[in-house]
Amino acid sequence: MATAVLPQPVQNLINELARLPGIGPKSAARLTFFLLRDGSNQALELADALRDLKERTRFCSVCFNITENDPCQICDDDERDQELLCVVEEPLDMLALERSRAYNGRYHILHGAISPVEGIGPEDLKVDELIHRVQNGSFRELILATNPTLEGESTALYLKRILAGNDIRITGLARGLSVGGDLEYTDEITLGRALDGRSDL
Amino acid sequence: MATAVLPQPVQNLINELARLPGIGPKSAARLTFFLLRDGSNQALELADALRDLKERTRFCSVCFNITENDPCQICDDDERDQELLCVVEEPLDMLALERSRAYNGRYHILHGAISPVEGIGPEDLKVDELIHRVQNGSFRELILATNPTLEGESTALYLKRILAGNDIRITGLARGLSVGGDLEYTDEITLGRALDGRSDL
Repeated sequence: MATAVLPQPVQNLINELARLPGIGPKSAARLTFFLLRDGSNQALELADALRDLKERTRFCSVCFNITENDPCQICDDDERDQELLCVVEEPLDMLALERSRAYNGRYHILHGAISPVEGIGPEDLKVDELIHRVQNGSFRELILATNPTLEGESTALYLKRILAGNDIRITGLARGLSVGGDLEYTDEITLGRALDGRSDL
Repeated sequence: MATAVLPQPVQNLINELARLPGIGPKSAARLTFFLLRDGSNQALELADALRDLKERTRFCSVCFNITENDPCQICDDDERDQELLCVVEEPLDMLALERSRAYNGRYHILHGAISPVEGIGPEDLKVDELIHRVQNGSFRELILATNPTLEGESTALYLKRILAGNDIRITGLARGLSVGGDLEYTDEITLGRALDGRSDL
């Protein structure tokens, strides 16, 4: 007697989806059967989007932002401050800063943070490219805007150490209360940093 | 000053992924950037798997299982009991029954369960096809193996009502304790059903 197994294309897709971070075998199976049952062309549209992602985007050769054109629109924009460089971990961090409309300089995307636990060292990030850019550029200030996490803070400290001596001001983002947040529910470390950084009203 | 936005292919993929059930905009963005950074060809392999899913699989015209060949290997297997029909909600339910190696008959896949809340009625499922199969076949027993949920039980009751009078035995799977489970943590409804269905040792 033949025992039923999943057809190869179904099993393949489950395996492929299960390789994605945060998607286990059960979610992968659920997604696959959703796409199988789906009457529209969602699976094919997703396939096209995936293909486009690889074929139509690249890293900006200056800042390592993700872009369709090299250099990217920010590096190519003469109206931005040429002497201000903000270092972030991910392209999404850059977008968050852009949304704030409070920054008008250049960016450098590290594509991660130093994390000995995950085996990520400076050589896995765009650190050499940053050093080269700082040494060959005319930046007056470097804003280290890594995440306020253990990995982000370590990365900022590391960068500060190797970039010191380049005659450039090195700054970090202020820590403090979230606007619209609640003092009662603010963690003690953030509250401590907010007190340290208090200013005259 | 130009404000940075995500390149169109990146935003497209985030949108496509966010349309999948259980994946929100944040997970979609995380997955997209994972695939962008990924050095291997995972995005392209996933695209191929999605394309194959649509192009190389179909529903079996007899039981509505997912298959590469029509009829599927189970409907095509003469060694299986021709007079026994097991009705399940999903292809994965059928695979679970196959793994038990305790069933040797045919299947019928409904592709869902009746759910007024989600607006799913019998006309959205393979119910007409089941009625046709039962009336034109020579089945001696119909096992309604829908899920032990409100929707599954309602679907079984509905099927029992419209298929009664076809001179066919209609059965359901036993409810009771999970093998290897713990009596202390078994919910009271299951425990009640296990008591009702007790048998001599």
